[in-house]
Amino acid sequence: MKQVKVAIVGASGYSGEELLRLLQRHPGVAITCITSRQYDGQRIGAVFPRFAESDLTFVAPDAAAIAAAAEVAFLALPHGLATEFALPLLAAGVKVVDISADFRLRDPAKYAHYYKAPHPAPEMLAKAAYGLPERYRTEIAQADLIACAGCYPTSIILPTSAILAAGLASPQGITVVSMSGVSGAGRKVDLPYIFPECNESVRPYAVTGHRHLPEIEQELAVAAGLDDLAISFVPHLMPVNRGIHSTILLDAMPGATPEKVEQALQSAYADEPFVRVLPKGGLADTKHVTMTNVCEIGWAWDEHTGRIILSSAIDNLTKGASGQAIQCMNIVCGLDEAMGLL
Amino acid sequence: MKQVKVAIVGASGYSGEELLRLLQRHPGVAITCITSRQYDGQRIGAVFPRFAESDLTFVAPDAAAIAAAAEVAFLALPHGLATEFALPLLAAGVKVVDISADFRLRDPAKYAHYYKAPHPAPEMLAKAAYGLPERYRTEIAQADLIACAGCYPTSIILPTSAILAAGLASPQGITVVSMSGVSGAGRKVDLPYIFPECNESVRPYAVTGHRHLPEIEQELAVAAGLDDLAISFVPHLMPVNRGIHSTILLDAMPGATPEKVEQALQSAYADEPFVRVLPKGGLADTKHVTMTNVCEIGWAWDEHTGRIILSSAIDNLTKGASGQAIQCMNIVCGLDEAMGLL
Amino acid sequence: MKQVKVAIVGASGYSGEELLRLLQRHPGVAITCITSRQYDGQRIGAVFPRFAESDLTFVAPDAAAIAAAAEVAFLALPHGLATEFALPLLAAGVKVVDISADFRLRDPAKYAHYYKAPHPAPEMLAKAAYGLPERYRTEIAQADLIACAGCYPTSIILPTSAILAAGLASPQGITVVSMSGVSGAGRKVDLPYIFPECNESVRPYAVTGHRHLPEIEQELAVAAGLDDLAISFVPHLMPVNRGIHSTILLDAMPGATPEKVEQALQSAYADEPFVRVLPKGGLADTKHVTMTNVCEIGWAWDEHTGRIILSSAIDNLTKGASGQAIQCMNIVCGLDEAMGLL
Amino acid sequence: MKQVKVAIVGASGYSGEELLRLLQRHPGVAITCITSRQYDGQRIGAVFPRFAESDLTFVAPDAAAIAAAAEVAFLALPHGLATEFALPLLAAGVKVVDISADFRLRDPAKYAHYYKAPHPAPEMLAKAAYGLPERYRTEIAQADLIACAGCYPTSIILPTSAILAAGLASPQGITVVSMSGVSGAGRKVDLPYIFPECNESVRPYAVTGHRHLPEIEQELAVAAGLDDLAISFVPHLMPVNRGIHSTILLDAMPGATPEKVEQALQSAYADEPFVRVLPKGGLADTKHVTMTNVCEIGWAWDEHTGRIILSSAIDNLTKGASGQAIQCMNIVCGLDEAMGLL
Repeated sequence: MKQVKVAIVGASGYSGEELLRLLQRHPGVAITCITSRQYDGQRIGAVFPRFAESDLTFVAPDAAAIAAAAEVAFLALPHGLATEFALPLLAAGVKVVDISADFRLRDPAKYAHYYKAPHPAPEMLAKAAYGLPERYRTEIAQADLIACAGCYPTSIILPTSAILAAGLASPQGITVVSMSGVSGAGRKVDLPYIFPECNESVRPYAVTGHRHLPEIEQELAVAAGLDDLAISFVPHLMPVNRGIHSTILLDAMPGATPEKVEQALQSAYADEPFVRVLPKGGLADTKHVTMTNVCEIGWAWDEHTGRIILSSAIDNLTKGASGQAIQCMNIVCGLDEAMGLL
Repeated sequence: MKQVKVAIVGASGYSGEELLRLLQRHPGVAITCITSRQYDGQRIGAVFPRFAESDLTFVAPDAAAIAAAAEVAFLALPHGLATEFALPLLAAGVKVVDISADFRLRDPAKYAHYYKAPHPAPEMLAKAAYGLPERYRTEIAQADLIACAGCYPTSIILPTSAILAAGLASPQGITVVSMSGVSGAGRKVDLPYIFPECNESVRPYAVTGHRHLPEIEQELAVAAGLDDLAISFVPHLMPVNRGIHSTILLDAMPGATPEKVEQALQSAYADEPFVRVLPKGGLADTKHVTMTNVCEIGWAWDEHTGRIILSSAIDNLTKGASGQAIQCMNIVCGLDEAMGLL
Repeated sequence: MKQVKVAIVGASGYSGEELLRLLQRHPGVAITCITSRQYDGQRIGAVFPRFAESDLTFVAPDAAAIAAAAEVAFLALPHGLATEFALPLLAAGVKVVDISADFRLRDPAKYAHYYKAPHPAPEMLAKAAYGLPERYRTEIAQADLIACAGCYPTSIILPTSAILAAGLASPQGITVVSMSGVSGAGRKVDLPYIFPECNESVRPYAVTGHRHLPEIEQELAVAAGLDDLAISFVPHLMPVNRGIHSTILLDAMPGATPEKVEQALQSAYADEPFVRVLPKGGLADTKHVTMTNVCEIGWAWDEHTGRIILSSAIDNLTKGASGQAIQCMNIVCGLDEAMGLL
Repeated sequence: MKQVKVAIVGASGYSGEELLRLLQRHPGVAITCITSRQYDGQRIGAVFPRFAESDLTFVAPDAAAIAAAAEVAFLALPHGLATEFALPLLAAGVKVVDISADFRLRDPAKYAHYYKAPHPAPEMLAKAAYGLPERYRTEIAQADLIACAGCYPTSIILPTSAILAAGLASPQGITVVSMSGVSGAGRKVDLPYIFPECNESVRPYAVTGHRHLPEIEQELAVAAGLDDLAISFVPHLMPVNRGIHSTILLDAMPGATPEKVEQALQSAYADEPFVRVLPKGGLADTKHVTMTNVCEIGWAWDEHTGRIILSSAIDNLTKGASGQAIQCMNIVCGLDEAMGLL
């Protein structure tokens, strides 16, 4: 089989490590370039000892060199910096699968509000496909630039959009409480993330205005057929390495029934290789999905309050980042969508 | 100082261990009796090695013997069994501080609904004081039977009741998402609680109809001046030993402001030794309260949705169970309320 | 490719789960039978939700049915019970890859001493190959019955035997201190293994006479060219899910040098796909090997005491059990040894 | 009761936090000064939210101001810096209880070797008492400068010295393998200590030449009546917050028996409030001692190898640092030795 040549730009963080883990055994790709400013010239085993057997070596990032080496580039860079590499790579004909937040929002004003700076390339926003294959498979297949859905957004949009699209819940008053493992903060060396500060602790953060909020609202509005909507989103940090759990509370619409909820979820995802809908009363557990590309969705019907309670679990580094990016790459390259991910 | 003679009935679980930890260094009490059917005749060091230096020895529980030995009995028993001991102890003139759920609900029909059995002594419900000193100090002081507030309820009622009592939030649509450490399940030997099943996992459970739900609703209704109300309450299990965190979302009433929220919390708890109200934007973290009797309360004003977001953290074994029981005992015995708890 | 038909006998524990995880994506095998007395008739998703998409269903174990379905049977059974199945399966021409301890010891007297019962089939001991491919590849290839090396033994024998075989360390006074994750205790529901008893705890156990001791000594004696030897082996339980770490202290022989130690390890394992020898001063970390079949070996030369200090790390469920079993199966079936394990 | 005025110099690390936790409820002391260069001017609640109710405020460290405020100064400073403060404080008549390593070694050459710099005040080494009350109570009572025993050394010297002093084990070939919780690395913000790098990991470090090695050897030599001895000491990092566990292997001397071992340990520590000797076969567990000042000692007699196997557990922040410092302070101030520590 001919192998797609891929580059990983910004390969020394946890998303980069997960891309390396998955792509090294992906039969349809050859990794031809991995970049890291900090580790330029070092073999990946020096940074990630579990890959000590690999000959791959970090190089300092250079768009021309990446374009010469690869047909597809994964960008695992901070927001802002991703755009700096995306533009020349696209110009050079490289497909870009971006894990950063740079191209997820349609509205540059929202980007400016939440990221405290004008968007560096607003004209690109309309050209990017939103990298959530279960909802944008066709767009992804045709795009040159794919903005992979964020970790929290993936865990929330998948279960909720199916219910909203079926008209079973009100788009008003949606409440989401999520919990993320510490790898979600990246490989960040900062006091709140050292072991003794995280272990035996649980705490919310960014309870108003988390940067993933407008992305979640954008996609739920699409599902509900609205221009916009507002939700409550409260993320928490919890002491696990990997995993995101989201609990979502929705007000059921008149006429909604448990049977219709089950039907909506099942019909939305029956053929999806990476979405698991549990039977009624089933509850998602991060343990069931770690190291997989699966989003597990549980749901309950709360007669007491007239609410639909959704729960979902993903591995933040796989379906929440690198696995999803590979799923998008498989689509855009015409490979089997699940290749390298089972 | 004259010491109050106390018994711990059902002392071999985690609440019992926490009572032992705190009461052994409490200057105002003498532990005269500890019971355990399973460990009858064994020293406490055989069950809890950290207490190996103590001469205390478990005896099989017997109401008459307990009444002969103690002025106050702490009941750390399963629901139902607590009533079996409470009745004869009360009849014998022993003050009863009950950590179980037997006497928390005012309405026996609610007990029957949630516990799947008629209440064993419905006539006692009106006589029990609800053991949450910050709200029922006077009643506790005069009661013979104290039904200590549950762990989740304590973490939810303290922050929420102050806001409801001040008329700053709607009693409709209240949403609570809580996370508990595994000791909250008791010292229970069951597959879902072994280490490899809990570690690196987060999962909701009992998302509809948790037994603490009617207790929370009862007390929030009191605070709101209503006969009843309905809330959403979704508990989760998280991989820490101790701690409960609750995130509570309330719809702000017209006229409510951040200043009024701060004022309501501060004025409710300014003089309370065991409630810490953080400044605006502060977020509760279980790490700040483990091994203490403190309830930490954070809050935020979410302009985006018009909601007040409360967060709270307690140690489920201390303020959520044994510390609170001792606080109640101090009140009922006329001791300094914080004695042995700082 | 023709696929080998395999059975997993006793598939509901952690070793069984790991066999299922690895074998479901192994291109050279088809799982035709999985057994569990407890879960007879249930799909594997009911026991292991992460496999919910699989149609595999547990059946009660029956040797004739297994023999009819499979060419190779993995036994993930308690010791003693493994023999009960191994004998009829071998008689029916099925190759047996046994993860239990039943056929690891050459000397039935040692078995009787450590397992407190006579060996149930002593005549089989000489026929079994010891399932540690790096040392017994030829024997495994020719055997019908493979007794996979235990988890602690694998982590200890691989580093130590290379040094002993090269004559660089004394076979006297060998000291090994190991730490195992809690999954090493199996999926066992018992008080010492519930989360609050393991988390935030580290403790030794079985410090004299652990059942893996004679197995370790047997193989180190072979490496040293002796009939027997005695070592100190102190295992500990540590609060992680997966992983074994062993630290091994050896008295250097006169003439030994750091260069010779490095040379001995490198030459023993240079061509091994699943052994990673770190450079001098490198120290093994379980994090580097979890979810892999790799044994990582570090070593240091302690001038201060004249000792060689070895450290090793494996995933107890992979190289310590199921991965190793598959490696052995690959050998015995003539498949690429690393198939399904990278 | 008259209260001793104490200062905590360097109060913003984990040892400082533990001193604050214990001293705030110590009835015999008043904290009059706490210093931190980094947090100068901030209340302790800003750094340690669990102390939010305290009015204590950090000041920049200044020896004259400390001397004016306090009778006893605890130094929780990096090595080297401790001496800079100890000298002027001693000159001003302040008793110094030093948690750093500056004054633990008798031999300045050893300090120079292990700390890569000449000792800054070698003349003080003979004047310092070694702060391990169970072995140096008399010296501590008379000293102005107390060099508190380190965390690993405390866990090793207490069990081992009793056996060596009784002549029951050889001082040759002693092997110690220890495991420390991550707080033992201090409140250090560095990549190896962030949560995802520590959680689900166990790894040795500094296997040759750890800085605690000469301290351990110095004190074991004293116990054995020798000028010097050499041991193997291999520390490991394990994913818990608090706790050190040490496993110590000793060659039994001719004539040694289990009874004599038990007798040696029991007679050495029968009257000690903070040493718990388990019965034969008992094994120390860090869980039994966290948040206490106790050293738990287990022991086994290994017939198989002729070795005595000791195990010990302490809380590295309490008996391994701050609790021990307070115990020493109680002695030097003539207070009850256990005051504030039970």
